[in-house]
Amino acid sequence: MDASEKGRVEEEVKMVVEQAKELQDLAAAFIAKTSGEEQSIRQRAATLDSNIRRLQSLIHSLLEHKLLDQTLADKLNEELQRARFVITDGEASAFLPSKAQGRFLRMFLGPINVRASKKDIQLKVKEEYNSYRDRTALLFLLFPSALLMLRSWLWNGCLPAFPVQLYQAWLLFLYTGLALRENILRVNGSDIRPWWIYHHYCAMVMALVSLTWEIKGQPNCAQKQRGVQLFLQWAIMQGVAMLLQNRYQRQRLYTRIALGKAKRMDVVWGETAGVDGQLWLLCPVLFIMQGFEAYVGMLLLKTAIVGVVSEWQVIFCGMLLVLMAVGNFVNTVQTLMTKSRFKAKMKKSKSKQELN
Amino acid sequence: MDASEKGRVEEEVKMVVEQAKELQDLAAAFIAKTSGEEQSIRQRAATLDSNIRRLQSLIHSLLEHKLLDQTLADKLNEELQRARFVITDGEASAFLPSKAQGRFLRMFLGPINVRASKKDIQLKVKEEYNSYRDRTALLFLLFPSALLMLRSWLWNGCLPAFPVQLYQAWLLFLYTGLALRENILRVNGSDIRPWWIYHHYCAMVMALVSLTWEIKGQPNCAQKQRGVQLFLQWAIMQGVAMLLQNRYQRQRLYTRIALGKAKRMDVVWGETAGVDGQLWLLCPVLFIMQGFEAYVGMLLLKTAIVGVVSEWQVIFCGMLLVLMAVGNFVNTVQTLMTKSRFKAKMKKSKSKQELN
Repeated sequence: MDASEKGRVEEEVKMVVEQAKELQDLAAAFIAKTSGEEQSIRQRAATLDSNIRRLQSLIHSLLEHKLLDQTLADKLNEELQRARFVITDGEASAFLPSKAQGRFLRMFLGPINVRASKKDIQLKVKEEYNSYRDRTALLFLLFPSALLMLRSWLWNGCLPAFPVQLYQAWLLFLYTGLALRENILRVNGSDIRPWWIYHHYCAMVMALVSLTWEIKGQPNCAQKQRGVQLFLQWAIMQGVAMLLQNRYQRQRLYTRIALGKAKRMDVVWGETAGVDGQLWLLCPVLFIMQGFEAYVGMLLLKTAIVGVVSEWQVIFCGMLLVLMAVGNFVNTVQTLMTKSRFKAKMKKSKSKQELN
Repeated sequence: MDASEKGRVEEEVKMVVEQAKELQDLAAAFIAKTSGEEQSIRQRAATLDSNIRRLQSLIHSLLEHKLLDQTLADKLNEELQRARFVITDGEASAFLPSKAQGRFLRMFLGPINVRASKKDIQLKVKEEYNSYRDRTALLFLLFPSALLMLRSWLWNGCLPAFPVQLYQAWLLFLYTGLALRENILRVNGSDIRPWWIYHHYCAMVMALVSLTWEIKGQPNCAQKQRGVQLFLQWAIMQGVAMLLQNRYQRQRLYTRIALGKAKRMDVVWGETAGVDGQLWLLCPVLFIMQGFEAYVGMLLLKTAIVGVVSEWQVIFCGMLLVLMAVGNFVNTVQTLMTKSRFKAKMKKSKSKQELN
């Protein structure tokens, strides 16, 4: 090696060291500058957010004391809603005060920040969540159907333990994933009802408990496996309901986005309702499903009390299913009531406008 | 309500709407501007990163062809290492090309970005991971100890199913959390060895499988529960080893940071080694533990082959334990070899310096 080439390598190394220092300084300066500006935008967003809230409650109280007429209040409220939509659905949303990350996320992930700073990434997360739900619903339909079909065609009416446990493990994975994703959506500004997340916690616990539950075989398979069988049937129904809901909610979300009434981060998992054409189909399915869920729960409790199967898992799963059915029912009814109240209001204001 | 107050509310609403539009414009402009600058810093960081790599391999090949003497090569390599340290440990690290988020994180969390943009948050994540490991190690020691003690004092030598299953569920939760956190650390620039993450995947699967494994009771409890008992003893040993490792690794990390040789995001879970004073204690413990792990695995396989317990879970867990023991052993030996090679090199260059 001649001296000049040796010198060139040395030169290059020196240059790289220099560049590293420069880059470090540049990055530090950039972060310092932008975080200052970011802080001030955050401050403005927080002030505006609280101002909108204050005005909304002011209008509400003025209306209650008859100090403001309905038409004007409606108009002002609509304008405020539009202002909120502008900041929550645009780039400004990244600077709004964020909801605290719950214990669940901290437990699994530690203190890492899961808030997307850019709107397009937030939307990607939402889209992916929707498509995940779609794939899930299909599996929800196919997996238990396959188990039940194989049971009568191949397994002579007696489910072997392994495929059922595989299914239960899949349920555990599925509900953990859904709970994590929904918590992430919440941090990213979605106003998903808390019950649907609690519902998934319950489902996680149930899947875990059902894994420890021995699947008994012959003899008397039909009697001993009655609970599992009912549970699988319920799961098939839930698959159908989920497919309907997904279809329905996506349509509804697009309608609401078009009307400027929803942020695109809204998730309305499960039992809320809206597009009238499909509501007549969805609502009965949901209520029947909830009824069936409670029925399966009661049946499990009965077998435990009568003493056919005496494991604690049976009682626990039974109670959990009843609890989930009741919670689902209450939340569906609440949503429907909010909806009908909203509709009545819309009708009233419409007829008023026509009168005027 | 007099007209002026009504007018004031209307005025305020109008102002709020105006402010919302302004804020949105400001936020959009800010994001557009900063993302342009950010892009250019990212570009520079990527170029610099690949330049350092190129020079390192150039020096390596020159050295191999004897076109560069050892002393100069060492000096240049040290400078390059320092340059790398400047950009990976400072603010610039946020702009370095990031490792792709693996399938595991996508499966549980969807496409959300878990990379911390600021160094101080990255360090918080790392710190929290360390303290999580500390708490975990303590539980790892106490939980199985309590089970084994209660077994002989209270349960007449026969473990009831529920507490053992609770322990297994805790293991599942623990390993899922660890696997998620380590994947997040990896995305944030830690160079944790891939094996330790695979190891946690194996442990997750084993915890899941062990949940489906029926804990048999009287009669002949001692014989039937031999596997569970061995497993718990192994878990206690692992608790001790984890406590030792955590102590040791934190010291070592602080030493390495002080020497400017490590990024603070480095995680060396488990079986790597360094602070000589404690190594004579840690290494035997680790090897004994791995031996015991393999022994428990073999014992499980034996019971399955002899036919005492014929469930598939026994064979599966046995094979998994043996696999994990072998993997741990290979990785520990590899780490020790790298270390001793490094040490020999250091000694050589030191004695050379003394000669000069």
